[in-house]
Amino acid sequence: MTRRRQIYEGKAKILYEGPEPGTLIQYFKDDATAFNAQKKGTIQGKGVINNRISEYVFSRLNHIGVPNHFIRRLNMREQLVRQVEIIPIEVVVRNVAAGSISKRLGIPEGEMLPHTLIEYCYKDDALGDPLVAEEHIACFGWANNEEMQDIAAMAIRVNDFMAGMFAAIDIRLVDFKLEFGRIWDGDFSRVILADEISPDGCRLWDMVSGEKLDKDRFRRDLGGEEEAYQEVARRLGLLQDDNGPSEVLDLSQHRKLRGK
Amino acid sequence: MTRRRQIYEGKAKILYEGPEPGTLIQYFKDDATAFNAQKKGTIQGKGVINNRISEYVFSRLNHIGVPNHFIRRLNMREQLVRQVEIIPIEVVVRNVAAGSISKRLGIPEGEMLPHTLIEYCYKDDALGDPLVAEEHIACFGWANNEEMQDIAAMAIRVNDFMAGMFAAIDIRLVDFKLEFGRIWDGDFSRVILADEISPDGCRLWDMVSGEKLDKDRFRRDLGGEEEAYQEVARRLGLLQDDNGPSEVLDLSQHRKLRGK
Repeated sequence: MTRRRQIYEGKAKILYEGPEPGTLIQYFKDDATAFNAQKKGTIQGKGVINNRISEYVFSRLNHIGVPNHFIRRLNMREQLVRQVEIIPIEVVVRNVAAGSISKRLGIPEGEMLPHTLIEYCYKDDALGDPLVAEEHIACFGWANNEEMQDIAAMAIRVNDFMAGMFAAIDIRLVDFKLEFGRIWDGDFSRVILADEISPDGCRLWDMVSGEKLDKDRFRRDLGGEEEAYQEVARRLGLLQDDNGPSEVLDLSQHRKLRGK
Repeated sequence: MTRRRQIYEGKAKILYEGPEPGTLIQYFKDDATAFNAQKKGTIQGKGVINNRISEYVFSRLNHIGVPNHFIRRLNMREQLVRQVEIIPIEVVVRNVAAGSISKRLGIPEGEMLPHTLIEYCYKDDALGDPLVAEEHIACFGWANNEEMQDIAAMAIRVNDFMAGMFAAIDIRLVDFKLEFGRIWDGDFSRVILADEISPDGCRLWDMVSGEKLDKDRFRRDLGGEEEAYQEVARRLGLLQDDNGPSEVLDLSQHRKLRGK
C-alpha cells in the first residue's frame, strides 16, 4: 500500500486522503485528551473500540435516514468516510446535567434537565471551544439559518435514536457531542453528520449502578477506562466478531449517500 | 421622612419600598465593582451622574414607546420606578467587539461586528453571570418565548435610539447591558425595561480620540473615571441644571405606564 497523504491530525483521530476524490480515511488513535488538551494520556485499545462503535451507530443512523459521512469500516482502526467541509461548531445534546453545564449553571450533576437541551460551542482549541448562541453562529457566518435548523433537527433525531439504543443495553444517555459538515454538489450544499460517535464524546451511565462508561473515567482519574469502553462495545454485541467489515452495512444506503 | 424598608442592595444600587404599592425607590451608590465583584472601589459622584443619565435615557425611551420602569427622578441619587419581577437575564447588545466577547471568541477589540449581536447572560453572581443561549432560557423557564421576542425587539430599538443619541455627541456606542422585568395585571404580565442605563453598563468611546468614557476606565485602572462619567453627562447637557426633577418628563407617558 502506498503511503497516504495525511490531511489532518486531531486529538483522537487522523484523517488521510481516501482512495477516491471526496473520500477520507478516518484513523482512530488511542490518544485521549481532556480539559482542552491540558490533560493527555492513552486509553489502550480505545481507537479500535471507537472505530467499531462509531461504525455501528453511524450505519444505523443511515438506516433511519440521518445522513452522515460514514461509508464503511476498512480495518480495526480505520473507516472510509465522505470528505466534508466541517462546520466549526460542536453540537452538544444534553438530557441530564453533567460536566460543563453543571459547573457553568450550578445544576447538580445527575439532575434531569426540564427538557433536552442543545448547546453549541465554537470549535477553537486555543479559545477552549467557547459556548456560543445561534446569534453568534449567524453573526459570524459559521453556518446559515437553514443549516442550523437541519443540524438541530438531526441532533434531536440522533438523541432519540441513541437514547433508545442505549436504553436497550441498560445505559443512560446523559449527553453527547456531534459535529456536522457540508457536502457540495456544484453550488449547492447540504449538511450531514460527521466525526464520530463513541464513549469519547458521550456521557454514558450504567442504569443500575450509575457507573460511568465513558471518557469521564479518564477526565476524572476514576480508572478502568479501557474496561468501560469495552463494556459499551460488549453490550452492543461488538466484541465477538472478526473486526472485518461489519455485517450491518446496508450498501444501498451508502450508494445513495455517495451518489451525486 | 420615615425610614424606608430596603428591598434589595445590589453592587451599585439600593432598592427601597416606594411611596405607593407597585413602586420602588432606586438609590444610586458610588460603589463600583468589576470582574464579578472581585475588584471593588468607588467612583466619586458616579451615583449622581448615573441617576441623571438613566433618567435622561429612560424618559426618552418612554417617548419613543419603549416601556420601562422609570417614573421620575426624586433627588440627586434617587428615582421612583415601577416595581417589576426581574427576569434573571442580562441582555448585552454589541455593535463593536470589546471586553468579554473579544476574549471569548478571539475578536480584536474595536473590530466592528458583522452585525449587531445580542447576547444573554444568566444573572447569578456566584456563577459569574455565565453566557447562555435562548435554549437555556427556554429550558429553565427564565423567560418564555414571547417574552424573549419582546426583549430582543426592545433591545434592538434601544440600540438604535442610543446609537443615534450618542453619535450626536460624538460618542460611539460599542455595547451595553440591559435588564428587563415583568409587570403583572391579574394573570397577565408584560415585559418592560428596568434597571439603569449609564456608563456603568455601556462601553462608550469618544469618536475622535477613541478614549473610553465608561467603566472600563475603572476595570482597567486607566484612571479618570470620575471625569469620564462627567464628560458623558456634560455632553448630554445634564451638568448645568439644579438636579431637581427633569424638565423632559412626559407625564402622560407615565400615567399610561402606571395605569392598569
